[in-house]
Amino acid sequence: LAGSAVLVAKEGVRRLEAGDYAKGYLDLLAKLTTVGEVTEPMFLDQVRFFGSEAGGDYAILVVPNRDESTILATGTLVVERKLIHGCGRVGHVEDVVVLPEARGQGLGHRVVSALVDEAKSRGCYKVILDCAEENKGFYEKAGMRQKEVQMVRYL
Amino acid sequence: LAGSAVLVAKEGVRRLEAGDYAKGYLDLLAKLTTVGEVTEPMFLDQVRFFGSEAGGDYAILVVPNRDESTILATGTLVVERKLIHGCGRVGHVEDVVVLPEARGQGLGHRVVSALVDEAKSRGCYKVILDCAEENKGFYEKAGMRQKEVQMVRYL
Repeated sequence: LAGSAVLVAKEGVRRLEAGDYAKGYLDLLAKLTTVGEVTEPMFLDQVRFFGSEAGGDYAILVVPNRDESTILATGTLVVERKLIHGCGRVGHVEDVVVLPEARGQGLGHRVVSALVDEAKSRGCYKVILDCAEENKGFYEKAGMRQKEVQMVRYL
Repeated sequence: LAGSAVLVAKEGVRRLEAGDYAKGYLDLLAKLTTVGEVTEPMFLDQVRFFGSEAGGDYAILVVPNRDESTILATGTLVVERKLIHGCGRVGHVEDVVVLPEARGQGLGHRVVSALVDEAKSRGCYKVILDCAEENKGFYEKAGMRQKEVQMVRYL
């Protein structure tokens, strides 16, 4: 039902850029969880880190709308380096969210598929993520299955 | 029942070192999962990475036995940098295992507590981990509670 969506997506996905601050990137994340105080300088510092050699194991992907004025969907891959599995790598999928006004166009699926491709190209032997029980079906369509339970402790 | 354990632990925890290859570190990991082929040069390269600036967000802790000849327990903290939660940090607890001959001395609890302390000192707002249903009780004793479900896709 893409026609009924208020905000229509551009083709493809791209990397998060400094200019996405002005395209509502933090408002998009706020649909997922608490963003808290993130000023533009803080955002730019963090994006600079993700783009640096030290941040090379992060890939933050976004889908903008057709005229590139608003970010509609995003997801992050964090590659973890292990000793197990022959010094293998595990891809952690984090912070996947689609703007409510852009749902129904398959953007979540597009982002997750792109993150899985990214994990493959970086040599990960698996991708994992934690999700609410009610989102299991969404991730099953992306070829995932439930394995363990997630535990948390707030500090 | 520490007295009945074959291998008695030294006090405290310390960082993984290059010399732990010869102290059975990989045999310990093999009690957890598939280690695969990890030669000594591969191990040393990876330990060098974890000790470098680029690997600064990793902390691999170990507990050796009294005479420092064998590694009895280990666990890893990986700090993930976020944009959400005020550019917050999340600690991922990974690869916690205790040598079967050293169980019953509370070494798993000691490692997990040290990883939580490490996460606190690095400014993480939470620590998370994935575990099998039957290990929930162990992590509940470390102040954790179940939150979500873990999904996986092997690549």
